Amino acid sequence: MNILLLVAHGSRREESNLEVEALSKKMIEYNINNFDQIIPAFLEFASPSIPEAIEKCSELGALNVTVLPYFLSAGVHIKRDIPGEVKNASIDFPNLNITISNYFGSRDEIAGLLMKTALDIK
Amino acid sequence: MNILLLVAHGSRREESNLEVEALSKKMIEYNINNFDQIIPAFLEFASPSIPEAIEKCSELGALNVTVLPYFLSAGVHIKRDIPGEVKNASIDFPNLNITISNYFGSRDEIAGLLMKTALDIK
Repeated sequence: MNILLLVAHGSRREESNLEVEALSKKMIEYNINNFDQIIPAFLEFASPSIPEAIEKCSELGALNVTVLPYFLSAGVHIKRDIPGEVKNASIDFPNLNITISNYFGSRDEIAGLLMKTALDIK
Repeated sequence: MNILLLVAHGSRREESNLEVEALSKKMIEYNINNFDQIIPAFLEFASPSIPEAIEKCSELGALNVTVLPYFLSAGVHIKRDIPGEVKNASIDFPNLNITISNYFGSRDEIAGLLMKTALDIK
């Protein structure tokens, strides 16, 4: 069983966290049998936290967990915080194979998409 | 003269801010005479700040400034902080026509792009 964790920063504003949850559901449209489940998780301000989500993956019987950082730039969260939390979880759940994918902001498509955003092109 | 401000959160990690600067340069490839200049700006931790960048737009002789929030979800920065800073700048520079575009995370393309990121598809 393969689970994808969509890891966002998390906000004090609940609507913002619900956006991430909606996005994790929308990703199902693009899931061609790659993942059995897609679960949102949050670094701060919202639940499940990364450790809570990884614990849930273990309970669900996952073998492989892919942590997908939904962050724009490689700041301290990408370089330190997320790898740190994943490392701790790996100790707690040694049977899980946890990998961290590249972060969202690394995609080449972003510059073009930003220009569309600026010009309000649908 | 039309100037686009690419407004990012800003990071304590300088490399992260340089990514945003590089992105603002990469956006030039997608600029079909829409903007005369594309300038990065930061809400926190890096310069120019939004007020500093808007002041620069005024000095450069801009008529129109488009503020493009490079944020993923509509948290407090999108709902309160950026509009607040833009409102203050509008008082200081009444000759500038400043508009705020939709935020990056509102794009429909993101779910598909996230799946590509998870699967490391170029």
